[in-house]
Amino acid sequence: MLLRMSTLFLRTLREDPTDAEVPSHKLLVRGGYIRRAAPGVYSWLPLGKLVLDNVANVVREEMARIGSQEVLLPTLLPREYYEATGRWTEYGDTLFRLVDRKGADYLLGPTHEELFTLLVKGEYSSYKDFPVMLYQIQEKFRDEARPRAAILRGREFHMKDSYSFDIDEEGLRHSYELHRAAYIRIFDRLGLRYAIVKATSGAMGGSASEEFLAEAVTGEDTFVRSTGSDYAANVEAVTVPAPPAQSIEGLPEARVHHTPDTPTIDSLVDHVNEHVPDAVGPGRACTAADTLKNVLIKICRPGEKDWEIMGVGVPGDREVDMKRLEAALEPAQVELLEESDFEANPFLVKGYVGPRALLDNGLRYLVDPRVVAGTRWITGADKADHHVIGLVCGRDFTPDGTIQAAEVRDGDPSPEDDGTLYTARGIEIGHVFQLGRKYTDAFELDALGPDGKPKRITMGSYGIGVSRVVASIVEQSHDDKGIVWPREIAPADVHIVGTGKGDQIEVALRLATELSATGVRVLVDDRSGVSPGVKFTDAELLGVPTAVIVGKGLANGVVELRDRSSGQREEVAVESVVERVVAAVGAESS
Amino acid sequence: MLLRMSTLFLRTLREDPTDAEVPSHKLLVRGGYIRRAAPGVYSWLPLGKLVLDNVANVVREEMARIGSQEVLLPTLLPREYYEATGRWTEYGDTLFRLVDRKGADYLLGPTHEELFTLLVKGEYSSYKDFPVMLYQIQEKFRDEARPRAAILRGREFHMKDSYSFDIDEEGLRHSYELHRAAYIRIFDRLGLRYAIVKATSGAMGGSASEEFLAEAVTGEDTFVRSTGSDYAANVEAVTVPAPPAQSIEGLPEARVHHTPDTPTIDSLVDHVNEHVPDAVGPGRACTAADTLKNVLIKICRPGEKDWEIMGVGVPGDREVDMKRLEAALEPAQVELLEESDFEANPFLVKGYVGPRALLDNGLRYLVDPRVVAGTRWITGADKADHHVIGLVCGRDFTPDGTIQAAEVRDGDPSPEDDGTLYTARGIEIGHVFQLGRKYTDAFELDALGPDGKPKRITMGSYGIGVSRVVASIVEQSHDDKGIVWPREIAPADVHIVGTGKGDQIEVALRLATELSATGVRVLVDDRSGVSPGVKFTDAELLGVPTAVIVGKGLANGVVELRDRSSGQREEVAVESVVERVVAAVGAESS
Repeated sequence: MLLRMSTLFLRTLREDPTDAEVPSHKLLVRGGYIRRAAPGVYSWLPLGKLVLDNVANVVREEMARIGSQEVLLPTLLPREYYEATGRWTEYGDTLFRLVDRKGADYLLGPTHEELFTLLVKGEYSSYKDFPVMLYQIQEKFRDEARPRAAILRGREFHMKDSYSFDIDEEGLRHSYELHRAAYIRIFDRLGLRYAIVKATSGAMGGSASEEFLAEAVTGEDTFVRSTGSDYAANVEAVTVPAPPAQSIEGLPEARVHHTPDTPTIDSLVDHVNEHVPDAVGPGRACTAADTLKNVLIKICRPGEKDWEIMGVGVPGDREVDMKRLEAALEPAQVELLEESDFEANPFLVKGYVGPRALLDNGLRYLVDPRVVAGTRWITGADKADHHVIGLVCGRDFTPDGTIQAAEVRDGDPSPEDDGTLYTARGIEIGHVFQLGRKYTDAFELDALGPDGKPKRITMGSYGIGVSRVVASIVEQSHDDKGIVWPREIAPADVHIVGTGKGDQIEVALRLATELSATGVRVLVDDRSGVSPGVKFTDAELLGVPTAVIVGKGLANGVVELRDRSSGQREEVAVESVVERVVAAVGAESS
Repeated sequence: MLLRMSTLFLRTLREDPTDAEVPSHKLLVRGGYIRRAAPGVYSWLPLGKLVLDNVANVVREEMARIGSQEVLLPTLLPREYYEATGRWTEYGDTLFRLVDRKGADYLLGPTHEELFTLLVKGEYSSYKDFPVMLYQIQEKFRDEARPRAAILRGREFHMKDSYSFDIDEEGLRHSYELHRAAYIRIFDRLGLRYAIVKATSGAMGGSASEEFLAEAVTGEDTFVRSTGSDYAANVEAVTVPAPPAQSIEGLPEARVHHTPDTPTIDSLVDHVNEHVPDAVGPGRACTAADTLKNVLIKICRPGEKDWEIMGVGVPGDREVDMKRLEAALEPAQVELLEESDFEANPFLVKGYVGPRALLDNGLRYLVDPRVVAGTRWITGADKADHHVIGLVCGRDFTPDGTIQAAEVRDGDPSPEDDGTLYTARGIEIGHVFQLGRKYTDAFELDALGPDGKPKRITMGSYGIGVSRVVASIVEQSHDDKGIVWPREIAPADVHIVGTGKGDQIEVALRLATELSATGVRVLVDDRSGVSPGVKFTDAELLGVPTAVIVGKGLANGVVELRDRSSGQREEVAVESVVERVVAAVGAESS
């Protein structure tokens, strides 16, 4: 490959685009890799197309390695298939919908579970046919409410989506592990720093699901990591372990206190510390962590009409995290109790609800795992202006179970007991998911088993945001001068810059031809009438790993070899530069 | 590449799909290359994806050779750009339109002239930047009224579209010639038989435009070819030459005759032959070709309100071809005269209109080029039941000009005077078009010239139907057993079939590995429990150029080498088969 800047369809920009906030957006536009066509819709210019193809090729090679087969499904999909799985409505405004000339409804594929299920159903019927793994690299369409950061969250984007079809759970686990391992190889080859993040707690029987998040302060996804291990999880997926139960032996009896003017946890704590000495044991002041906050919610299970009222108890120093609460109760719908619910249930004294009223009235009461037997609490006494002090779990009340709903905080112990948690930000670049039978049930994808009986197939789905990966690499790999491409993804291996008014450009072109002949991918700046300063600035902005400067030194038979990543510069005899570049490229490629 | 049939996502079909009429539709579906997802919307299965990629790669190589640069523009395009060029409405029902969550109008790109013009306008501004040629290979969307023949005319299809931008006409002609030559190389490499067909006559100042039509009896496009040369043209583009003028010396005077009961040309001819001896000269009976039929039309030019009535005169043995008439009068709208028009112009005596009434009343009168000075005609006398005989062009009437509107018939002389014309059918696989300034005018794409003055850029547009090419190859290259792929496009170079119950499959796999290691693309039938007959049938259906049968002969150390195209079979020693296949592949690839 030999690209000449004199004819390349490329104009770099000195200014950041006005709508750009993150480095990848700024640098990819300034470097002439992409151009905006509409909100969240971008064009790929020649260098951008090369980078995009390079990422796609790494993905293809690793998909082939695990035996996944490439296909290409359409963008234009009939409504009926998405109606069958409920996604026609579930996707809401995010789906691009359209009507054809005959009035039939279509959508632009946001992901292709339905079509792949139908495709496999059309071809395969026996257990001997399975397993099979299929993938495609294709444009996807999602009408994002807030497209942002150019190709980081676009409305038209490139995705690798694959799907596995297995006869049983063990097969699914194997297909999942194959993909997970392939994703590790892919993101390693792409030079990305990333975390593999547990996406669901599995508490409610959810299947395994992990996200690959590229570390980036500009990322939209927050997750928690451990200081002591590779543990990483979405906040929803963090499982707080239960501490060991404590002895209730010798704990004082619970007593109800009049606690006027204590609308907040803080005011309650102050009141108790002032009026009830040794409320939490001898010689220790009480804190918010000694209080038990009971949040009242109601849930509605799918397909049911009635709402169930229940209580969630968490230590008073923590809020209930609604995302964690909803994830824990999924697929039920969750809402906080309204005024009318309190009116209909007068035993619920707003602001003073305690375990007693809930349990005595047959309402479900779930608590944070830290609320173990033997722990003592200050909590509502089910009577206005009154709290109970010294209420002991396992003695004075027995919850119906635990729930992962309390907020996760930096410094919390890691669930794997190997350090403490801290919050990090990342960009979702991949997702592996044991999907199970949602789609195979919808389309009745069965295989005839060896016993002649039909067996429902189980599916996995696995995605990589190919265009988003391009942006993620730039987020992680740039400096104030421009992009620093990893070699495998770079639009070229070497950027040869001819500067000066002598035969520098001629020599640059000769070196370009020689290098290109050895298989090295070459970009050569052979523009005349462009100053050395502009050429150097462009080279740094474009971010090709190795640069060769053919400048004034040529008179003395030397050129300069520059490494974009380290910034290292070295004078090299012009006769040996081809060899040196070939060696540099080979060393990194092998 | 090594594909194993035992795991390949492929199920061939014994029966033609019920909706299939043409060979490519039948064979590509039966061979498991494509599957229908919706009307005119198809999925590409693993072998199909390989073939599609192979075609795309040939296109890419030849585009690179002429210096065209690859980009990738979006599918989702804002209405405003197509509004600016009028195509938002011009495309009618063929455009897929949609509305995003904010109520903005979008379309799915049917072709990208608008976006490319804007892209170039965004980057380039000086005459020094030009020329530039850009292309993409991308899915295109057109809501065809009658999608047919699977990928031959789909609603979502793959297209290579390129665009050239030049500073002047000479540049445009050069870019056009580069593309034309590239297309010839591409279609030659793809092994297609095709004609390069003139698409416009250029009569009305239209720019050069040629279509590449793959010869196929199943093709939708008719065109005419010459028996004596490479001449080929759309019917609209055929220019009938004018014969030399004849002397009017000594021709008898025109006379009006009462010709009752002659509603048709045939009845008029019979009447004249019965009642007017020597009407067309001594000793010759008159024929329909001696009559002059005057067809009355009205035209409306773009942007004008008024319709102009005019007459078109053609020899009575030919119909007016409405497509040719419309092409000749483009961009005006054309309609036949209605009853009310005759009523409003009583000098037009329906069925008896002659040149006289038209010319005397100031209406334009254009004639077929065969109506030259000195020709004598039987035509309407502008009076009911009367015709004039012996009306001589250039003596009794002088038309306002000629028009290419008469039907073209098999046996007509070629416009290049090198044989006679005959009708052929083809599939449009490519189109090269000197577009001119339609789009650069709409978006004011100028380059600053050396004189500091802006110069409007001129464009060419060039398309290849990549997915349609796949179907066209099958239309031309198949037999009753299946597809016969040209090697460059085939999903594999060699199809190794292991049959029998001994170590045939093991040996087949060993040969597959050895061949694959040499760079030969291998498909190996390693299925167990499948009869030799089924395997042979599949091999012929799939159409890989070379087959190696590892069967009973293995006991004697021989395998069979089969050539799909010639049907030739040969026994070869198992030790030498790798070498033989490598030689066969190399010979054809070089």
